Amino acid sequence: MAGGTSTPGESVLSRSMRLLSAFDADDPYLTLAELSARGGLPLSTTHRLARELTNLGLLDHGRDGRYRIGVRLWEIGGLAPISLELREQAMPLLMRLYDATGENAHLAVLDGHEALYLIRIMGPHAVPTLSRMGGRHPLHTTGVGKALLMTRDEHWLDRFLAQPLERDTTHSITDPAELRAELNRARVRGYATTREEMTLGNVSIAAPLPAVPGLPPAAIGVVTHLDRADENRLAPLVIKAATAVSEVFASARS
Amino acid sequence: MAGGTSTPGESVLSRSMRLLSAFDADDPYLTLAELSARGGLPLSTTHRLARELTNLGLLDHGRDGRYRIGVRLWEIGGLAPISLELREQAMPLLMRLYDATGENAHLAVLDGHEALYLIRIMGPHAVPTLSRMGGRHPLHTTGVGKALLMTRDEHWLDRFLAQPLERDTTHSITDPAELRAELNRARVRGYATTREEMTLGNVSIAAPLPAVPGLPPAAIGVVTHLDRADENRLAPLVIKAATAVSEVFASARS
Repeated sequence: MAGGTSTPGESVLSRSMRLLSAFDADDPYLTLAELSARGGLPLSTTHRLARELTNLGLLDHGRDGRYRIGVRLWEIGGLAPISLELREQAMPLLMRLYDATGENAHLAVLDGHEALYLIRIMGPHAVPTLSRMGGRHPLHTTGVGKALLMTRDEHWLDRFLAQPLERDTTHSITDPAELRAELNRARVRGYATTREEMTLGNVSIAAPLPAVPGLPPAAIGVVTHLDRADENRLAPLVIKAATAVSEVFASARS
Repeated sequence: MAGGTSTPGESVLSRSMRLLSAFDADDPYLTLAELSARGGLPLSTTHRLARELTNLGLLDHGRDGRYRIGVRLWEIGGLAPISLELREQAMPLLMRLYDATGENAHLAVLDGHEALYLIRIMGPHAVPTLSRMGGRHPLHTTGVGKALLMTRDEHWLDRFLAQPLERDTTHSITDPAELRAELNRARVRGYATTREEMTLGNVSIAAPLPAVPGLPPAAIGVVTHLDRADENRLAPLVIKAATAVSEVFASARS
């Protein structure tokens, strides 16, 4: 997530945001030189800003000399309504889905052209997945992503499909016409599936939440292993959970 | 969490932090006037900074005119090692504890003189608690808090007990000598308990994690209802989980 180069006159906040945005899940620890390079800021500016961000608790500076996102920033972030309300309200219902299935249970919302994961429940017997709370994944290769696509109109899909679809595995659907046909099938039966389209061996089953005014489109899904993917058993549980979470969201807003 | 008054020459970052720190779990939505008052900044400064923070995604500005912590800030916060690593590594083991008990399962770390909750698993049959991920609670009235106190030496406890202990319920232990005696008993048996000291009707059982070099003190606990609090059954499960999580943390660092 390297940024561009700083422009003269750019504000302190904008430059600080370059530094905060330099971190990602693959590289959560960065040296001053890495921060400087990724943020596109001179070393002296980076040093001064990083020191102040550290004093404020937005960054932490480890004994190894590397910077990381600070505990205080994590804590403030937890006050975003998406976490404080949506995630907390949905959690018991996602746990109910977990209780009934023992599988990975996910809640994601649409953000731009990606699925942003609000909840990822991973039990001790669940298959490994790449997802995590606060993580992002493609719409066309994940169960919750396809469920989110089910809620989009043709105009939105036209724009989405104007960009090339990346291939995560040999099973990923990257042909726009094929994906549209897949979404139509999903809409008819009320849920989406993926078969090894993101991770080999994994199958997902997901359903969109009935829309709630004022909230972003959201979806719930489970991820299981190919060998135990019982679609007929799991799909009704997923749809039931999606409906229940939507009702909780709606009643909290009325 | 109202701040003081801004001083002349205070940096843009410091003033921005005042605004971000103006939000708390009780008031996650603030008008411009509220932001200004809580941040201790003039209305014009607040307006200018809030607009820039909104443009950067650190704040969101709702249709109702109120500000809230932005999705982007939540997302960046998730990259803090405390969330990205500790929480993600511990989650499957906390889920195992949940599977075995069906009760609220918590992981908290010591931060200052408070317990900072990294994980709160709340199943559909769990008793209501005040905790949430990213939330803070007192050390002397929560199970994980007392377990964290078990790890502190006399010198640390002297400083902690120099301040008055707040009373959350009539059962809260607020007498320093009584709390010290309670901690000694907890150390002998290897786990801490609370009985309605934070929430009436709730009982908690918690154990400290065996220390891992470089990590803050941490504890795991369950919260259940008084009527079904089987200490002899729950305590060994909690201690087992605490040991397992500590081992996972340690092996991820070696």
